[in-house]
Amino acid sequence: MKYSIILGNLGNTCDRFLSSGYKDQPSKETMIRQASEIFGVTGVELVGTWDITPQNADEIGELLNKYGLVCASILPDHFSQKRWGRGAFVSLDPAIRAQALDETMIAAELARKFRCPLVNIWPGQDGYDYPLQSNYLQARQWIVDAIRAAAKAYPDIRFSLEYKPKEPRTHSFLARAADTLILAQEVGLPNVGVTIDTGHSLVAGENMAEAAVLLNQAGRKLFHMHFNDNYRFWDDDMIVGSVHLVEFIELLFWLKELGYDGWYSMDQYPYREDAQGALRNSVEFLQGIEAMLDAKSMEEIRALLARGDAVKSTAWIKSKIFPSKR
Amino acid sequence: MKYSIILGNLGNTCDRFLSSGYKDQPSKETMIRQASEIFGVTGVELVGTWDITPQNADEIGELLNKYGLVCASILPDHFSQKRWGRGAFVSLDPAIRAQALDETMIAAELARKFRCPLVNIWPGQDGYDYPLQSNYLQARQWIVDAIRAAAKAYPDIRFSLEYKPKEPRTHSFLARAADTLILAQEVGLPNVGVTIDTGHSLVAGENMAEAAVLLNQAGRKLFHMHFNDNYRFWDDDMIVGSVHLVEFIELLFWLKELGYDGWYSMDQYPYREDAQGALRNSVEFLQGIEAMLDAKSMEEIRALLARGDAVKSTAWIKSKIFPSKR
Amino acid sequence: MKYSIILGNLGNTCDRFLSSGYKDQPSKETMIRQASEIFGVTGVELVGTWDITPQNADEIGELLNKYGLVCASILPDHFSQKRWGRGAFVSLDPAIRAQALDETMIAAELARKFRCPLVNIWPGQDGYDYPLQSNYLQARQWIVDAIRAAAKAYPDIRFSLEYKPKEPRTHSFLARAADTLILAQEVGLPNVGVTIDTGHSLVAGENMAEAAVLLNQAGRKLFHMHFNDNYRFWDDDMIVGSVHLVEFIELLFWLKELGYDGWYSMDQYPYREDAQGALRNSVEFLQGIEAMLDAKSMEEIRALLARGDAVKSTAWIKSKIFPSKR
Amino acid sequence: MKYSIILGNLGNTCDRFLSSGYKDQPSKETMIRQASEIFGVTGVELVGTWDITPQNADEIGELLNKYGLVCASILPDHFSQKRWGRGAFVSLDPAIRAQALDETMIAAELARKFRCPLVNIWPGQDGYDYPLQSNYLQARQWIVDAIRAAAKAYPDIRFSLEYKPKEPRTHSFLARAADTLILAQEVGLPNVGVTIDTGHSLVAGENMAEAAVLLNQAGRKLFHMHFNDNYRFWDDDMIVGSVHLVEFIELLFWLKELGYDGWYSMDQYPYREDAQGALRNSVEFLQGIEAMLDAKSMEEIRALLARGDAVKSTAWIKSKIFPSKR
Repeated sequence: MKYSIILGNLGNTCDRFLSSGYKDQPSKETMIRQASEIFGVTGVELVGTWDITPQNADEIGELLNKYGLVCASILPDHFSQKRWGRGAFVSLDPAIRAQALDETMIAAELARKFRCPLVNIWPGQDGYDYPLQSNYLQARQWIVDAIRAAAKAYPDIRFSLEYKPKEPRTHSFLARAADTLILAQEVGLPNVGVTIDTGHSLVAGENMAEAAVLLNQAGRKLFHMHFNDNYRFWDDDMIVGSVHLVEFIELLFWLKELGYDGWYSMDQYPYREDAQGALRNSVEFLQGIEAMLDAKSMEEIRALLARGDAVKSTAWIKSKIFPSKR
Repeated sequence: MKYSIILGNLGNTCDRFLSSGYKDQPSKETMIRQASEIFGVTGVELVGTWDITPQNADEIGELLNKYGLVCASILPDHFSQKRWGRGAFVSLDPAIRAQALDETMIAAELARKFRCPLVNIWPGQDGYDYPLQSNYLQARQWIVDAIRAAAKAYPDIRFSLEYKPKEPRTHSFLARAADTLILAQEVGLPNVGVTIDTGHSLVAGENMAEAAVLLNQAGRKLFHMHFNDNYRFWDDDMIVGSVHLVEFIELLFWLKELGYDGWYSMDQYPYREDAQGALRNSVEFLQGIEAMLDAKSMEEIRALLARGDAVKSTAWIKSKIFPSKR
Repeated sequence: MKYSIILGNLGNTCDRFLSSGYKDQPSKETMIRQASEIFGVTGVELVGTWDITPQNADEIGELLNKYGLVCASILPDHFSQKRWGRGAFVSLDPAIRAQALDETMIAAELARKFRCPLVNIWPGQDGYDYPLQSNYLQARQWIVDAIRAAAKAYPDIRFSLEYKPKEPRTHSFLARAADTLILAQEVGLPNVGVTIDTGHSLVAGENMAEAAVLLNQAGRKLFHMHFNDNYRFWDDDMIVGSVHLVEFIELLFWLKELGYDGWYSMDQYPYREDAQGALRNSVEFLQGIEAMLDAKSMEEIRALLARGDAVKSTAWIKSKIFPSKR
Repeated sequence: MKYSIILGNLGNTCDRFLSSGYKDQPSKETMIRQASEIFGVTGVELVGTWDITPQNADEIGELLNKYGLVCASILPDHFSQKRWGRGAFVSLDPAIRAQALDETMIAAELARKFRCPLVNIWPGQDGYDYPLQSNYLQARQWIVDAIRAAAKAYPDIRFSLEYKPKEPRTHSFLARAADTLILAQEVGLPNVGVTIDTGHSLVAGENMAEAAVLLNQAGRKLFHMHFNDNYRFWDDDMIVGSVHLVEFIELLFWLKELGYDGWYSMDQYPYREDAQGALRNSVEFLQGIEAMLDAKSMEEIRALLARGDAVKSTAWIKSKIFPSKR
């Protein structure tokens, strides 16, 4: 399993009440060094404009080399600038829509430069807030067109669409695994797939493992994984395992079973926590499950799934958590 | 707009705490008469085994004629018998899976007999309750196979898959509009589509109108509509409009806009209420919106959607609710 | 820690779709024997009319003796009979309200007979479904009056009010820990307190441990505990630990810290599972946490709470789940 | 009914993704003038440090006079400064706790100066994010102590505690109406009460009207009302009536019935909307309900509540929304 983190997770964090942020902003080098210090982490994801631009690309590339990290993905920024406030790919202003595509192209160009095969697209502002506010037909088509244009222009890059049911809009257009898969299928290109963010999936009411199976079954369309935890109602972006355990075991079982060979990337928002510690805890939690899922456990789980008996399944889980228990 | 009701809505209702039910069970004729008395209702949906069997089909047909109603759909019973308790199409027992398909075929046969073009399939027991309890790959395939077999055998009947995120299982396999659409597409036959139950859609966290657009856009796959209201957390099956208004206006706008020409069918569970009154209220509520959506309103809403300004949209809604207001 | 189970958990289970139930109903003796076979279980809770009546009390008493169990509580049945359908303590019919009180008195009498100090009151039908359906002022007063009458009549019995946000009504009057505590305080008698059902608390959006602290701080008003697990949206009544772990550890820490000396009672609905196995799994899961919370762990948790550092807290949890981890 | 708005609602709005905000920040005078232009609005609420400080108090006072507005409340800022990031009243740092009290005292002093009888306290950062992160006993006591100190020092000012289940923390200490009431009762002073924010109440899973009844019944502890709408899962701070209608009618019925004579204050976050228009829509929506609730309607609702028949109640609502309907 290849572990990475989104670099910005190590930086300052703000919310709508405390816009200056809960922390101070470290330097890029500090963040990259901190990422490299987490045992097992070999990659970082870089957000356009926040972390990476055509201007600073060489400098960032050198820092990555210095600390032995590779670029796991580039995330074009379609969410953190005033111009995207009322939508990027679905803005009613054609000039903004064009800029949203430009930003995607720039990200793909940067990905090429870093020999990184993945652009992760999270069009967070592309949604709506109120009933009777949006033309769903039109909006969906605009997203399809833009993604197709980018994916055609960069056939060597995989474009992975990250869904999220809400926030910053009350409704996102890429909301759930299945509707995002349908959109990817409408685009009709092999280099367009889907990212599961575990927290987004929980908020969507999905079973994360089932979402992974669904995407994989549809022509191996699960391209990328983001990890974090929450209380199922909101994208709290917490340390993995701080709330849930069993469903993460199930998810990792299936990722292994399906032959997922992409990154296990941390995507958190440690508002008030030591960021490096929060990320390390997540990675170590996943490594703990990874170790649990040896060949014997994999075989046992396969047998449990064939049996379909929840008493047996929960007993198995219990035996793993409390090994000394009768 | 054609209004119908699910006949059983007029009967006794129970829950896990009061299994004998909150009411007494009226006769079939009483229920059919009561349905016919609701102004605007011209159809009923009939549930296999509960309402309709090959044995009583002639009798029920005569009663429908007597009261001037048509059969809007047949719903095979895949949920209310002990044999389906651990799944129908996805039971681990092949004999049960075969019976689930049989039940579907019987429903299709009854539909033909009633010159009813629609079989509505809600495989309520086809899901799972616990993590690590189900082989998602296998289960999904079994559903695809069964639906394909039925739809091939009855090409003149439309099979409409009704999704619901949960209940009676904590997770259903047909959970949301998009994943059910994907499954319908996997079946690959023109006579397989999707039913939106408004309450299920609300619980799924969907915007009901957006779900309708998504299904329609994918080759007119919105086959059928069930109406009820709830508080978004559970399928409370309440009177339409008792909690929500604006989103029902939006939904009916889009159904009209998309040229949906199927039934507007009530699907409620008036546990403790006078059932006929509860259903009448729902129909009248929808008729109220239908009257609101005249050509002028339709044009106004189109303009609002093109504008995307929530202040304008909510002002429009307000002017409809409080017409005397400045 | 004293473990008990609600006897009916071992019996047949139904829901609104499958009213005849998913299983067959075993004999009382079978259920009592099965309860006694779960290692660590020394008590059972008995539901009025379902399990226990003045008529069969001697017989049940002998069976409990035979299998070495005590009666942990009596639960008057205010939910499973048609007469309670529109409310028990808050029925608009004064005759029903009187019967609801009678049922409570009978339960208290049975409790005395069994030398059981606790009557657990869950007035499940006492709520409302629709806006503009209920006079909240009146309803609340009726509950206060009835509980006071019962608690005055049986000062030697503790009456513990079990809250639940919803189901079978869309809104219960005893909905959350704090509003139930307020009602208990209005009653104004020392033998009236509150039951936390962990699943109800999760659905209420509470932190279970914080609810326990709140109730204890208000004059030791936490009288009783019911255990089960769910996905936070509905009272799924699942095996403890099948979804959550960390919050159960926190809850048991606090129960120990607060000196809670009541029962740890299982309250599940194993619709499709082997009931004894499902209950055993829950008990063993809690025993696993009990063993984890030795003096050293208690001290460590106290230190973590004083520190307030989520990185430290989650690292501690991780070290317990994956002890071999660095 | 006296309408007011929180002044900052007219200003710039940001979120965690777009920290610079979706808009530009208007001048104080512009915002005050815009507030005064909304028909029916006669008061504004001012947030400490954002809107009002001892330094600019005279200037703000003159602007309010100029535009004919009064100060409806002062809200001390316990949420938007880095020092409160890990809690204000419950910070583990005693110096921060002292500052939180100071800030409250300053707000009370400003309230006096403006002859405004209300300080609205929303300690947004006073909560916790993770299990095993907080000592609930200790935290609660610190809040009680601070509120008591402020309320004793300013017996002529009413301190109204605004609850919210979550955000910015995953769990707030003042989370729901009932637990906040319990805390207010622990403080034990007549000038401490509770604010209902309608959106917070919806997210808490409360029925807003029932919460108002509960607080009023406990010695008229409902001190203040904030209005906005949302989808029940998150504090979306939307235009009132954009999602819900019936429950707002019920709430206003009860506020009138209970003799609530405080402000009806708008508290929204029009991230991307014209703020004045968004606020005006809310006020006009409430004025529409106010007009609906004439003496005849009040009497009709009282009769409906006494009857408890949801069919009658929903028919009544329908007759108000679609008056021309049969």
